[in-house]
Amino acid sequence: MSWLPIPRDSHFSLSNIPFGIISTAKDPSPRPAIAIGDHVLDLRAFTSADGFSAAPPELRDDPLLRTVLAEASTLNPFAARGRHFHRLVRRYLQHVLASDTTVLRDDEPLRRAALLSRAEVRNHLPMTVGDYTDFYAGKHHAFNVGSLFRGPAAALQPNYLHLPVAYHGRASSVVVSGTPVRRPWGQILEDPAAEPKMPALSPSQRLDLELEMGMFVCGENELGRPVPVDEADDYIFGYVLVNDWSARDLQAWEYIPLGPFTSKNLATSISPWVVLADALADAKGPGIANDTPLLPYLREKVPDQVLQVELEVDLTTAAAADMGTDSDVEKAAEGDTTTISRSNSRFLLWSWPQMMAHHTISGCNLRPGDLFGSGTISGEDPASTGSLLERTGGGKTAMRLQGGGERRFLLDGDTVVIRGWAGKEGARVGFGEVSGKILPAEQLF
Amino acid sequence: MSWLPIPRDSHFSLSNIPFGIISTAKDPSPRPAIAIGDHVLDLRAFTSADGFSAAPPELRDDPLLRTVLAEASTLNPFAARGRHFHRLVRRYLQHVLASDTTVLRDDEPLRRAALLSRAEVRNHLPMTVGDYTDFYAGKHHAFNVGSLFRGPAAALQPNYLHLPVAYHGRASSVVVSGTPVRRPWGQILEDPAAEPKMPALSPSQRLDLELEMGMFVCGENELGRPVPVDEADDYIFGYVLVNDWSARDLQAWEYIPLGPFTSKNLATSISPWVVLADALADAKGPGIANDTPLLPYLREKVPDQVLQVELEVDLTTAAAADMGTDSDVEKAAEGDTTTISRSNSRFLLWSWPQMMAHHTISGCNLRPGDLFGSGTISGEDPASTGSLLERTGGGKTAMRLQGGGERRFLLDGDTVVIRGWAGKEGARVGFGEVSGKILPAEQLF
Repeated sequence: MSWLPIPRDSHFSLSNIPFGIISTAKDPSPRPAIAIGDHVLDLRAFTSADGFSAAPPELRDDPLLRTVLAEASTLNPFAARGRHFHRLVRRYLQHVLASDTTVLRDDEPLRRAALLSRAEVRNHLPMTVGDYTDFYAGKHHAFNVGSLFRGPAAALQPNYLHLPVAYHGRASSVVVSGTPVRRPWGQILEDPAAEPKMPALSPSQRLDLELEMGMFVCGENELGRPVPVDEADDYIFGYVLVNDWSARDLQAWEYIPLGPFTSKNLATSISPWVVLADALADAKGPGIANDTPLLPYLREKVPDQVLQVELEVDLTTAAAADMGTDSDVEKAAEGDTTTISRSNSRFLLWSWPQMMAHHTISGCNLRPGDLFGSGTISGEDPASTGSLLERTGGGKTAMRLQGGGERRFLLDGDTVVIRGWAGKEGARVGFGEVSGKILPAEQLF
Repeated sequence: MSWLPIPRDSHFSLSNIPFGIISTAKDPSPRPAIAIGDHVLDLRAFTSADGFSAAPPELRDDPLLRTVLAEASTLNPFAARGRHFHRLVRRYLQHVLASDTTVLRDDEPLRRAALLSRAEVRNHLPMTVGDYTDFYAGKHHAFNVGSLFRGPAAALQPNYLHLPVAYHGRASSVVVSGTPVRRPWGQILEDPAAEPKMPALSPSQRLDLELEMGMFVCGENELGRPVPVDEADDYIFGYVLVNDWSARDLQAWEYIPLGPFTSKNLATSISPWVVLADALADAKGPGIANDTPLLPYLREKVPDQVLQVELEVDLTTAAAADMGTDSDVEKAAEGDTTTISRSNSRFLLWSWPQMMAHHTISGCNLRPGDLFGSGTISGEDPASTGSLLERTGGGKTAMRLQGGGERRFLLDGDTVVIRGWAGKEGARVGFGEVSGKILPAEQLF
C-alpha cells in the first residue's frame, strides 16, 4: 500500500493519517505533522519544500495552505478551514504515501527534511482548547456511579434518557499525553456519617481515571443558532482519547448542587494525534439502545451513528518504595502492567451529532478548538468499566493486578495508558495512546 | 481635580480609570481605551502619539508598552503584564488628566486624536475569555433558590459554608453589554408531576436574569500549584458587572446530577469597562458572616476583603404588541422602567481571593483572561433579590412594575440594565452598566 514500511499492527496505517503538533530537539518550535506508521511527516517542512506541488490545483493554490500547515503552531487554523479542506489534504497525503507515488518517495532531500522517526518527536497539545464540555453519555457508567452515590433505584435521573447530560469542564488544564499528573489537595469528608459534617484538607486518597473519547470541533455557529443534528457532522474535526482524572473524595463532597469542580480541574489528558472525522466515517454503528421517544432535534435521519472504537486501559505500577503506601498487598504490584479494562465507544447512549445538537439547542455558540468529552465509557461487566470507582465498587473491593498486587484507587507512581483503535490489521485507524503518571502530592500544608 | 469636565455623578471619575476595548465609526479596529467622565481616551492613539513621554522612565521605556496598549485588540496582553504595570499605567493616566498636568491638556492635536466622546465609541468584549467559572457565593440567593427547589431545610447543602461552591460556565457565549439575547429553545418538563416524565421542546417560558459581579484574572499559576489565599490579590486584574441569563425551565429539568448546562449557555453579558483591582482596593469590608471554622487555605490574614459595591437592576419593557403575551396585566407594563432590585456585593459569603484559593486548591491553572462570576447577589429582602426566580417565588407571585404592569419572568422586548458603583459623588468608582434586551425565540421547530 505504502512505499514506507508500516507495521501491520500500527494504529497509523495509510487509512488513518491523524494530525498533531510536534517539535524536535533540533527544532523546538511546535508545528503540524501527521503520523504514519513509525514515522511522522513534518507538515511545515513538507509544505515549505513544495510538497503540495503535485496536489490538485484547488489544494495546491489555496492561499491559506502555508498559513495553516507551515506557519501555525496549533491545529486550530487547519481545523477552522472545514471538512472539505481536511478531506483534500488527507487524501493528498494518502496519495503521497501510496506505493506508486514518487513525489516524496523519490525525493531524498524532501524525505530527509520532512520524514522523521516518531520516536524522535515530542508531541504537544494539538489544539488550543476553547471550551471543554464533558458529556455523561456512557449509560453503564452513569448507572454504576449513580448506584454508588444514590442507590440503583435513583441511579439514572429522570432526564437521563431524554437528553445528553453534560457539564462544562476546565479547558486550561487539558494536557497532552505524557504530562505527569500531580496528586491533588482538596476538601474531603473523611467521615460522612458524623454530624456536623467537618471536611479535612488532604491530598486526595481516591484518585481515579476516566476512560473517555473526545471530539474536537472545527465549525462555528452563530450565538442563538442551534446546530441541527443532521448537519452536526460538518462541525466535527476529529477525535482523541481522553483520561479525565477524577478525585472521587473531593467530588463526593463538592458536587451537590452544581456538579464536579476541583475534583476534575486538576488535569484532563488527551492523546496527541487527532483522528480526522473522515478516517472514522465507516466505524459507526448502534450505540446503547434507547426506547425513549426522542424530541425532534435529537432524531437523526440516518440512525446508528455511534463510533465503534475498541478501548483498552493499562495500569503500570512503580517501584514499591515510591507508591506512598504501607500496604504490602498494594506494594506487591511493583513494576507490573495490567490491562484493567477493555471497553468500546459503542457503550455510549448518544452520537456526537446528538451531543452537539443538544449542546447548541439553547443557542450556545461553538468554535473551532472546542473539545467535547463523551463521559466515561464502561461496558456491561466489571472487566470493561472505565473507572476504578466502578471496578472496585467505590473502593470497597480491591481489584487484582498482575503479580498479585491490588488497587482500590491510583497510587503514586502508577501510570495509566489508554489505547483505542478501529479497523483491521493493516488498515487500522488508531489513536496511539494517552498516558499519564501520578506524582506524589506536594507538601503544601 | 481634572482639567476635563467630569459630571459629579459620573461612574468614571479620576479615581476610577477603567479599561476597555473600543472602536469608532471612523476606525472600526478594536483597541484599548480608558473611560473618563463622558469621554474615553483612545490608548492606541495616545501611545502612538507619544502620550507616555512624560511618564516615569520605568513606564516610558517599557519595551512592551506599545504592544499591549497600541497594538492589542483585547486587554489580555495588558492584563498579563501584572499588577505593578497596571498601577504604573493607571497612576500616570490619572496624572495626565489632573488639573495641573499639561501633557494632554495643552496639546490640542493629541487631544483631538485621542480624546473621544464616550457616546461615539462602540464597546467590544474587553478580554478574550479563557475559562469562565461561575461561583455561587451569594448566600441569600443560594438559600432562596435551594428553598424553591428542595425546601428550606435542605436549601443549603452541607458543603455550602465550608467551600466556595462553583461550576464551570461557558466562555464562548460571554458577550459585551448591549448584545441582544435571543429567547432560547430547550427541553422543558411542563408537568413535573406526570409519570412517566415527558419533556417538550419549547422556547423557554421562564427566562431570567442573574445579578452578579465578575472578576478577570491577570496572573498565571503552574498546573498543580494552588494560589495561596494571601497571594491571590496579585492575580486579580479587575472587575465587571455580569448578567448570567438563565432559562429556569431548562435548568430545573437538566441540572441533576451535573449542574446547569443549556440553561446558562445561551449568553452571559458583562459590562464593557474593567475596573482595575487598585481602583476598588478601598471598597472592601465584611461579607456575609460565617461561623463555620474554615480550613487553612481559605483563611485570610487580613479579614473583611469582600467588595462593597452598590448594585441596581432596572427592567424596561417594550411596546405591548412586542411582548409575545396575551396577558393584559403583563402588557400594562408597556414602555415602563422599574428598578427591580437594589443589592450590594457585600451579600457574598466569600472574597475573590478565597474563591481563587479554592479554585486552584487541586492544582487548576489560571490564565490571564479567565473570568470568575460571583454567583447571584441577593440581599435579605425581596426588593434586593438578584433574580426574578427569587423575587416571584419561582413564578408564583408576580412582581409589580411601574405603570401597573407585572412580570413573573422576562418577556420579549424586556431590557435588563445592571448598574454598580462604589465611592462618593465626585470620586465614584463605577462600572457603568451591563444591558441586554430579550429578542423573541426564532421559529426553529
